[in-house]
Amino acid sequence: MSVLVVGTVAFDTIETPFGRAERILGGSATYAALAGRVLDAPVQLCAVVGRDFPEAHVQALVSRGVDVEGLVRDPEGETFFWAGRYHYDLNTRDTLATHLNVLATFQPDLPAAYRSPQVLCLGDLAPAVQGADLDRAGAGALVVADTMNFWIENTPEALAETLQRVDVLVINDEEARQLSGEPNLVRAARAVRALGPDTLIVKKGEHGALLFCGDEIFSAPAYPLEEVIDPTGAGDSFLGGFAGHLARVGATDAEAMRQAVVVGSALASYTVEAFGPERLLGVTPADLDARIDDFRRLSAVPHIVTA
Amino acid sequence: MSVLVVGTVAFDTIETPFGRAERILGGSATYAALAGRVLDAPVQLCAVVGRDFPEAHVQALVSRGVDVEGLVRDPEGETFFWAGRYHYDLNTRDTLATHLNVLATFQPDLPAAYRSPQVLCLGDLAPAVQGADLDRAGAGALVVADTMNFWIENTPEALAETLQRVDVLVINDEEARQLSGEPNLVRAARAVRALGPDTLIVKKGEHGALLFCGDEIFSAPAYPLEEVIDPTGAGDSFLGGFAGHLARVGATDAEAMRQAVVVGSALASYTVEAFGPERLLGVTPADLDARIDDFRRLSAVPHIVTA
Repeated sequence: MSVLVVGTVAFDTIETPFGRAERILGGSATYAALAGRVLDAPVQLCAVVGRDFPEAHVQALVSRGVDVEGLVRDPEGETFFWAGRYHYDLNTRDTLATHLNVLATFQPDLPAAYRSPQVLCLGDLAPAVQGADLDRAGAGALVVADTMNFWIENTPEALAETLQRVDVLVINDEEARQLSGEPNLVRAARAVRALGPDTLIVKKGEHGALLFCGDEIFSAPAYPLEEVIDPTGAGDSFLGGFAGHLARVGATDAEAMRQAVVVGSALASYTVEAFGPERLLGVTPADLDARIDDFRRLSAVPHIVTA
Repeated sequence: MSVLVVGTVAFDTIETPFGRAERILGGSATYAALAGRVLDAPVQLCAVVGRDFPEAHVQALVSRGVDVEGLVRDPEGETFFWAGRYHYDLNTRDTLATHLNVLATFQPDLPAAYRSPQVLCLGDLAPAVQGADLDRAGAGALVVADTMNFWIENTPEALAETLQRVDVLVINDEEARQLSGEPNLVRAARAVRALGPDTLIVKKGEHGALLFCGDEIFSAPAYPLEEVIDPTGAGDSFLGGFAGHLARVGATDAEAMRQAVVVGSALASYTVEAFGPERLLGVTPADLDARIDDFRRLSAVPHIVTA
């Protein structure tokens, strides 16, 4: 099965307590596509860049086997730019700049080969753009989407419409509470699923993630990293790894979803080990297997006799 | 093996968004002892109450098989009283009143039968009192202790001394960061263990708990409850369940610790289902087994083939 990733390809300037990286390769689609490719599933990328985007970055994606036919270059403008500064604890950040640039007028026009993906993976974009893409490619696909506070606050109507066409929604705990108005996560999850998504994944940062699928809940731990260098792209790597696993195994049942959450978590844990996508670009299937084993050991509940 | 629980027996007045309970049975030793008894380990309780403490409360403990020979009644004063109000999300609370009363002058004087426990379980008390008890009974015991922000801020020297004699420390993530000055939990855990405790458990509330034991980390999920009625006593129930399990199986290796974390988590998840110790008083070994099975299903990482 193939994955179509629709999202941003960007320049990021990132400050953390450990250093600073200037105008490096970033964007939700970049991380998601690279993560998906670790699974060796076909990954198609749909995004826009500007006249300033270097060919070397495109080649970095191609070298990992990402299909970039749908990566449009808009000669009229500059590439989407984001700058942010992480706080001391790395759990929170301030956005210093968001220049939409070519993203402001982007209307995805999918190549013919992109029009019937099995998994459609929507990175962080305006819900309206997410909606337009869904119309084109989502009809026969499993639609996996990510959202953010900004859209919940600013375009709630477009978001509500999009949610009705999303199969798997991936949001963080704060967003789940905000969307539902419920402080209790189990109730919040039920309320969010009532808005459309059959399956919900609630990311909890350093506390792991919860998968709500059918009547089951799966609690995935976070990998206990001693050195988090740069959290940028962790969520997008999760999304791409999740989608890539489902595409690779060709299944979307509860067991496959559970597996995909672990795969996504493992890939995200690699991403944060270096600035930008640097570490993710080098992750091998053997690395992934090793970390999946770590996740299994980390959360294995032993046999317990109580009486 | 037997467990000696040293802590508070109290009156609690509790306000939550769901209601209010006035001067009900509370205290760290109450919850810990009741939780330990679900495991059918011998549990001895050392605490003080005042002239106002009803015999019916003592009988509630006795009816669950808690040894109350060490429960001292001080006719000179009133029972320790705590009042608190939980916020809307139930994750934070304000303390409205803390009347130490008879606790202010309490000096534990252990009955002869209490002097050689195998597990010494120290609930939330002043570190100085914890230290004095350790001198008496902790020499040959596994010492399991709980601490709180208040002591970290107010009596850091007494705390440091106590920590050197603690084998298993149970604190929350905020306390771990505060004690160590490290925002990263893995580094914070290493720094806290360097202060004395061989084994560290970091409680993360609705996100579960992390066990650091030997070179291993175990991530235990939280039970995803839809209705948390009153979080009071959850941490103490965890502590007592943890100690009770180790006493019951007569082991303190990494595997037993992992099991004990799940048992403690399961019992804590029952405690919060009702005001005060009401639900915990009725938990049967079968209830405990059922919830342990839920924890296992909740966190089971399936077999994953990546390539």
